[in-house]
Amino acid sequence: MRLGRIAHPDGICFAIIEGDSDDPQSDKLVAKEIAGTPYTTPEPTGREWKLNEVRLLAPTLPTKVVALGRNYADHVAEVFKESAESLPPTIFIKPSTAVIGPEAPIKIPDFATKVEFEGELAVVISKVSKNIDPENWQDHVLGFTICNDVSSRDLQFQDGQWARAKGIDTFCPIGPWIQTDLNALDLDDHKINAYLTHEGKREQKQDSNTNQMIVKMGGILAEISQSMTLLPGDVITTGSPAGTAPMYDGDRIEVEIPKVGILANPIENA
Amino acid sequence: MRLGRIAHPDGICFAIIEGDSDDPQSDKLVAKEIAGTPYTTPEPTGREWKLNEVRLLAPTLPTKVVALGRNYADHVAEVFKESAESLPPTIFIKPSTAVIGPEAPIKIPDFATKVEFEGELAVVISKVSKNIDPENWQDHVLGFTICNDVSSRDLQFQDGQWARAKGIDTFCPIGPWIQTDLNALDLDDHKINAYLTHEGKREQKQDSNTNQMIVKMGGILAEISQSMTLLPGDVITTGSPAGTAPMYDGDRIEVEIPKVGILANPIENA
Repeated sequence: MRLGRIAHPDGICFAIIEGDSDDPQSDKLVAKEIAGTPYTTPEPTGREWKLNEVRLLAPTLPTKVVALGRNYADHVAEVFKESAESLPPTIFIKPSTAVIGPEAPIKIPDFATKVEFEGELAVVISKVSKNIDPENWQDHVLGFTICNDVSSRDLQFQDGQWARAKGIDTFCPIGPWIQTDLNALDLDDHKINAYLTHEGKREQKQDSNTNQMIVKMGGILAEISQSMTLLPGDVITTGSPAGTAPMYDGDRIEVEIPKVGILANPIENA
Repeated sequence: MRLGRIAHPDGICFAIIEGDSDDPQSDKLVAKEIAGTPYTTPEPTGREWKLNEVRLLAPTLPTKVVALGRNYADHVAEVFKESAESLPPTIFIKPSTAVIGPEAPIKIPDFATKVEFEGELAVVISKVSKNIDPENWQDHVLGFTICNDVSSRDLQFQDGQWARAKGIDTFCPIGPWIQTDLNALDLDDHKINAYLTHEGKREQKQDSNTNQMIVKMGGILAEISQSMTLLPGDVITTGSPAGTAPMYDGDRIEVEIPKVGILANPIENA
């Protein structure tokens, strides 16, 4: 099942997204309103809209987004110019104020230079979680989503700490929805793609696979929840694979994880 | 005026704290319940308690705690063994799940070694704020409080990113209350003290002054809010002065900023 959050003519609600497409722009998709939150069994209210006639919002309102850095071997080599062995994964936090939904513009302020996308597989936490057993990580996860860990590469290396480079307002697109079927993906072999449209030309930039992940999902959730209590709706994003590239005013970035969906955002100068 | 948040026999509320003492343990203090939140003019309900007969909680529930690293010249020299010129201030985020109030135990998990206190002057944001003018920072601040930026020094340097070392549950004591008189402190010359009690012996460890701050309050708020929208209740903590030291099970740490108050917490192994 896919669960999204939408703005419709009468307000905002969570909805089951039905139909056979990964693309939120498709006219095959329908949003069926559910009562309450997605953390219990979703109960349709009977109201529904064609998805392309309403607006998809970020599918969760996280209290925090905890992100892994340097967790894809191919990306470590590309950005840090070192091997994964010498630079183990590290965690950082993106603030809730950076979160936007599909099609909302990523706005680049003038002091943030070399702003790159990082299309990542993410999970949404389902319940208050501490000391997660890596074998039972699925018990704590509502589903998969996509996080674009937008980063000013210049600020990242200038500051040393990544909170500012990756925490600027709009630098955390999440969506398009939550895929609650936790067996839909092979976490040892699943595609993560990203396509950048620049000056009208669409090019595939990320062409990677979860097989490049260094710490796997159970290990990630165990490691983070050993330190920090995770709350329902919190997002854990598992790190970027190779292929990141700068984005500029007028560009469009689409991150695609098959069976999860396509998360697309335009780029604007702030 | 001092505004706190308390747990009393019938529930939780915000309260005006009255009486002539910086020490929450004093029997001279009274907590007078206010209606609603402290972001509008506080209206007493008429209910009150002696403060030492109720429990002080963290005075705010921040969506994020944005912290400055390396913002006191004396601390930069002490921890980083370099001059402040070569290592400019940097920002990082402590998650809301790390926040505790006065007298709540700081709990040290076994993997977090060399856990040190960092007693810091902090401010609580009063309204949605972006691009704060450094000259008008007071328009965006509800008041001063104290933040103890508890840090596992070993994890901090091992991870590179500080989110885990400083984001562990209970590693962000805030309090004891909010001092709303923004002219009560001379930000160019005001004491910041910390006292550690170890094996029954109480010693002053921090003996510093806001005159060691590298970036001043207006500059801090301007810099952070240029990137991140700040929300009411968010906490900005301005960096630790020199004098940090390791804490162990059974210790007690007290951070004192005159006219703000005393924030004290016991230390326990988790």
